[in-house]
Amino acid sequence: MPLGQRAGDKSDSRYCGVEVLDFPAGEGLPAVLNHSLASSFDFILAPLVDPNYRPAPGAVLPVSASDLVLGPAQWSNHVVGKISEWIDLDAEDEQLRLDSELTLKQEIAWASHLSLQACVLPAPRRSCGNYARVVNQILQGLTNMHLWLRLPLEKSEPMDDDLDKVKNNNHMNEMVDSWELWNSFRLLCDHSSQLCVALDISSTLPSINSLGRWFGEPVRAAILQTNAFLTNGRGYPCLSKRHQKLLTGFFNHYIQVILSGRSNHNVPPVSEGVLLGDENHTEDAPVRHALSPYLDYTAYLYRRMDPLPEQECFEINYRDFLQSPLQPLMDNLEAQTYETFEKDVVKYTQYQRAVAKALVDRVPDDAVSTTRTVLMVVGAGRGPLVRVSLQAAEQTGRKLKVYAVEKNPNAVITLHSLIKLEGWESLVTVISSDMRCWDAPEKADILVSELLGSFGDNELSPECLDGAQRFLKPDGISIPSSYTSFIQPITASKLHNDIKAHKDIAHFETAYVVKLHRIATLTPPQQVFTFTHPNFSPNASNQRYTKLQFEMPPDMGSCLVHGFAGYFDSVLYKDVHLGIEPNTATPNMFSWFPIFFPLRKPIYVPDRSPIEVHFWRCCAPTKVWYEWAVTTPTPSPIHNSSGRSYWEHEHDRFYSIYN
Amino acid sequence: MPLGQRAGDKSDSRYCGVEVLDFPAGEGLPAVLNHSLASSFDFILAPLVDPNYRPAPGAVLPVSASDLVLGPAQWSNHVVGKISEWIDLDAEDEQLRLDSELTLKQEIAWASHLSLQACVLPAPRRSCGNYARVVNQILQGLTNMHLWLRLPLEKSEPMDDDLDKVKNNNHMNEMVDSWELWNSFRLLCDHSSQLCVALDISSTLPSINSLGRWFGEPVRAAILQTNAFLTNGRGYPCLSKRHQKLLTGFFNHYIQVILSGRSNHNVPPVSEGVLLGDENHTEDAPVRHALSPYLDYTAYLYRRMDPLPEQECFEINYRDFLQSPLQPLMDNLEAQTYETFEKDVVKYTQYQRAVAKALVDRVPDDAVSTTRTVLMVVGAGRGPLVRVSLQAAEQTGRKLKVYAVEKNPNAVITLHSLIKLEGWESLVTVISSDMRCWDAPEKADILVSELLGSFGDNELSPECLDGAQRFLKPDGISIPSSYTSFIQPITASKLHNDIKAHKDIAHFETAYVVKLHRIATLTPPQQVFTFTHPNFSPNASNQRYTKLQFEMPPDMGSCLVHGFAGYFDSVLYKDVHLGIEPNTATPNMFSWFPIFFPLRKPIYVPDRSPIEVHFWRCCAPTKVWYEWAVTTPTPSPIHNSSGRSYWEHEHDRFYSIYN
Repeated sequence: MPLGQRAGDKSDSRYCGVEVLDFPAGEGLPAVLNHSLASSFDFILAPLVDPNYRPAPGAVLPVSASDLVLGPAQWSNHVVGKISEWIDLDAEDEQLRLDSELTLKQEIAWASHLSLQACVLPAPRRSCGNYARVVNQILQGLTNMHLWLRLPLEKSEPMDDDLDKVKNNNHMNEMVDSWELWNSFRLLCDHSSQLCVALDISSTLPSINSLGRWFGEPVRAAILQTNAFLTNGRGYPCLSKRHQKLLTGFFNHYIQVILSGRSNHNVPPVSEGVLLGDENHTEDAPVRHALSPYLDYTAYLYRRMDPLPEQECFEINYRDFLQSPLQPLMDNLEAQTYETFEKDVVKYTQYQRAVAKALVDRVPDDAVSTTRTVLMVVGAGRGPLVRVSLQAAEQTGRKLKVYAVEKNPNAVITLHSLIKLEGWESLVTVISSDMRCWDAPEKADILVSELLGSFGDNELSPECLDGAQRFLKPDGISIPSSYTSFIQPITASKLHNDIKAHKDIAHFETAYVVKLHRIATLTPPQQVFTFTHPNFSPNASNQRYTKLQFEMPPDMGSCLVHGFAGYFDSVLYKDVHLGIEPNTATPNMFSWFPIFFPLRKPIYVPDRSPIEVHFWRCCAPTKVWYEWAVTTPTPSPIHNSSGRSYWEHEHDRFYSIYN
Repeated sequence: MPLGQRAGDKSDSRYCGVEVLDFPAGEGLPAVLNHSLASSFDFILAPLVDPNYRPAPGAVLPVSASDLVLGPAQWSNHVVGKISEWIDLDAEDEQLRLDSELTLKQEIAWASHLSLQACVLPAPRRSCGNYARVVNQILQGLTNMHLWLRLPLEKSEPMDDDLDKVKNNNHMNEMVDSWELWNSFRLLCDHSSQLCVALDISSTLPSINSLGRWFGEPVRAAILQTNAFLTNGRGYPCLSKRHQKLLTGFFNHYIQVILSGRSNHNVPPVSEGVLLGDENHTEDAPVRHALSPYLDYTAYLYRRMDPLPEQECFEINYRDFLQSPLQPLMDNLEAQTYETFEKDVVKYTQYQRAVAKALVDRVPDDAVSTTRTVLMVVGAGRGPLVRVSLQAAEQTGRKLKVYAVEKNPNAVITLHSLIKLEGWESLVTVISSDMRCWDAPEKADILVSELLGSFGDNELSPECLDGAQRFLKPDGISIPSSYTSFIQPITASKLHNDIKAHKDIAHFETAYVVKLHRIATLTPPQQVFTFTHPNFSPNASNQRYTKLQFEMPPDMGSCLVHGFAGYFDSVLYKDVHLGIEPNTATPNMFSWFPIFFPLRKPIYVPDRSPIEVHFWRCCAPTKVWYEWAVTTPTPSPIHNSSGRSYWEHEHDRFYSIYN
């Protein structure tokens, strides 16, 4: 049964497994499974074949249980296969290599026959070329089953006592960063989406930056060794603060825990013991599972987590879901839940604060009664910026005249209703017109717009506002007055594979709006492009070119960069800002997800090497696009040359305010 | 007019150009061109636009000559455009960057309008991200014209005297390996096949290994500076031995020479002067071109080269031409010129020597009259191995009984004619049969076959001979008795681009037979797989796995590996061998070209880094295939997993001798 219930969390990380260390001889597997399920584990990680087996002519595979002993759903839902740990595909001994290859293929074929969801592959030794070749061949033929490559989380020293040898197939002779092994293995297997990772967690943990890389990798399970546990004052197992935090991270990233090892704590059931009332095995008076105290503690950690904030629950289905600008799911959602987006309270509160400050600066207290400020809302939609502007005027005691400019006739209907309903007829003039045809009767003191995209300028705000500023007085104010885009390199294997599935270059030369979740951010973000409004300079151009250098944390190790997460921050007016750049993000705002710029081929960044990245914003008469490239540590192709794959063109929404 | 005539050489490297240093003002270009052509140069490298031009609103491009001043064929055949050298796309100064971008695009557009075949781009400074972005955009839109990126051959120190600055746009402040610049540039431009190289050659040359890399790159021109020349005893210009050798290399690799610089030698025409009889300018009594002495010397070097050997002339059209195993051009050729291949005298001489030695070993001198050796030719074809076997018997005085086993009925007809013609009826038995049905009347002392491919075992010789050895006595001899395959990493940008043009993965997972020419071999070859015959061991397998490590020459610098050249060497019998491995290749043999295993993505190998490569020979019941991968310096995907793109299947020719 699940570790607990958590609002909004429907992920597999609620389920906890247990590793079966000894081969259940004589078809003993059903008993082992039933005991584990009765002890509240959800699944077992179990050997499928007698570890003493070696291939021989005519030999029958000595499996732990025939497929008839368990029902298909039991095999599929409650058993993860463990491939024999003696196999060594890169041994010097050719016969051992050949036996290993045959056994691996036989065991995987057997697991497929049982319809298992996954098998755990033993950790590779230092070199893995032949192992990867055989696994890659197997992956070509697999349909549903996943393979989880087992790897120690910690940089490894040899573990030579017998007990550990059984649990953790690790014979390395010097410190090896297992991320490097994983990276070689998955590159050799060409980023197969069915090749995942199971991490062995023991008592020592690497640095936070080294750990962090794994959250962008396809880690499916954390195999938590009993020797990772400490003992609390009452004799019960518990974990160090760092381990606790790591487990919380796993729970949040859909990573299942599998308990493993011999019990080091022999304690009676804690009060929340979950065995009572179990329906399957009440009559057998089952022996308590040796690892139950560890499961109890793990469940305790799960239940202790803060509930997901309301906004996270709302956005949970968008996690790591690529929204292509060509198929904007978000736009459909906007149509369905228009009100929801208008009710981004935080965003409009910031706009109101900005307008209020601008009004106070524009009209001194002694001129309040004689001066009426002209404010134009460019792209008024259904009126949220009209409302906050009037509220700002009321709040500051300034007189205001508002032009609400909108081309969409459906929105204009709503605008008229709103004005009537609120009694704003004397304050607001609705301009239902294409801006190109409109002859403004006067110039504005303040121009308010909400044209920003996730990357700031990516929805043509600069071009729109350049067009609209002809209605602005020379000393007029634009809200926003400036905005800046940011990027940071990330590991994001899921996003890479989702893009790769399209099998073309164009999808790798497109930026996506995406609620980033299962990613690793490798460095702090840096600024890319800044735009300031109004800009009356005669030579002003919206073309931009920025070259950035990112330094990796020195204790992180090597990593793979799948692309760049993009954000924006905007100065609405003076100290009032709005943005999603993680370090300064406006809290509880939900109008924007980050943007993701992928790389056609992920870039391997060696330990302590910097990354040098180039971003261009290019402009042609009818379209605007980005190009991007990496030059250090190794040059990538220039992405999206001449905007061949991805661009913004000046569609209707923008023509309306274009000069 | 060409530098000279050389049998078989129809390449562009016969043509020599001259760089025009000063901008020909006032439409002076036709005069400059005519003078150069009259002085026996074939083309000029000339600036197209006044170097003082900077873009400005309404400015007209100040070109060196309107398109009407020269005919279309003159522009296209005799002018290579030189892009203004002041442009600096990666300058700190944004205005200079923007001016450079606009000018570059304007000049290229003008050159396209003139239908020039190529333009030379000034050398990039140390950083080239923005330069590459603009060139890449231009390349997307070019149809026929090529761009030659100008680069100094030597690692560069700053050259600050004014004269050199004009000639060689090189402002670097420390030693830079221009190959690194080239590599970054072409990776950013995604290996565009229209982006090539023009190398500036001055007085100092880098190491031979460093030079060697360029022969695998798309170098189109060598711009030979006058300051690279020495002065001989009579006051004439000449070149150092190393420069002479380099120029010969250029001539052999289709690289055109362009002379450049001010004359440092003022000498009268040498006796071979080529101005006499020039039809265009006899009346003008033209002034001798300042660089004529250098052209004379260059022509002298060209004419002094050895003529191409007959075999090279025969094979010249196969140079760097990929023969896909799926579309075997070579097989068509074989059908047309069957006799030619039978007349590979060297190959059959080696076979005869091997059979002779085997006969002597098999039959002591005192048993010559009583012993008759049984020899089977497996795959006798039209009989060349039958002939050499009988000649060996005659030569050694041994009695021979030959079975000529052949399934192809057309070849069998020829065999019977041959036997009648030669009067061999008592010596040779033709077996026109599928081996699988044939019941051999006796066992053989010697089994002779010619089933080797360019990579030794790649045409299933091991499987064929395993099948045929059931006709062999336990102590019998197989000729060949063993064979070994070899690989070496190479730079081969042309082959890479030819494969890339197919736009799929399968073509990058196929091995090609190819007469390698415009490649750079980066290290000596190493052994891959060895097969020995007969092999009566019960557990014998034809699967193989080899891991190789290649060390790069320490003075070479970094390089790009596009794939691996493959060869074989075969021991026919004892010390008689046959093969194409370059260090031990049998001279004057023409039956095999090398094989080429490509890499989907070329691997950048940093200075002094080794390469680790894995090759597998995999066998399934109905097919045999190779897989290959690189693991150091960075892992590649495993190529051709499960033989999905390329394999040998046991077709009729092989079934006939299969058990």
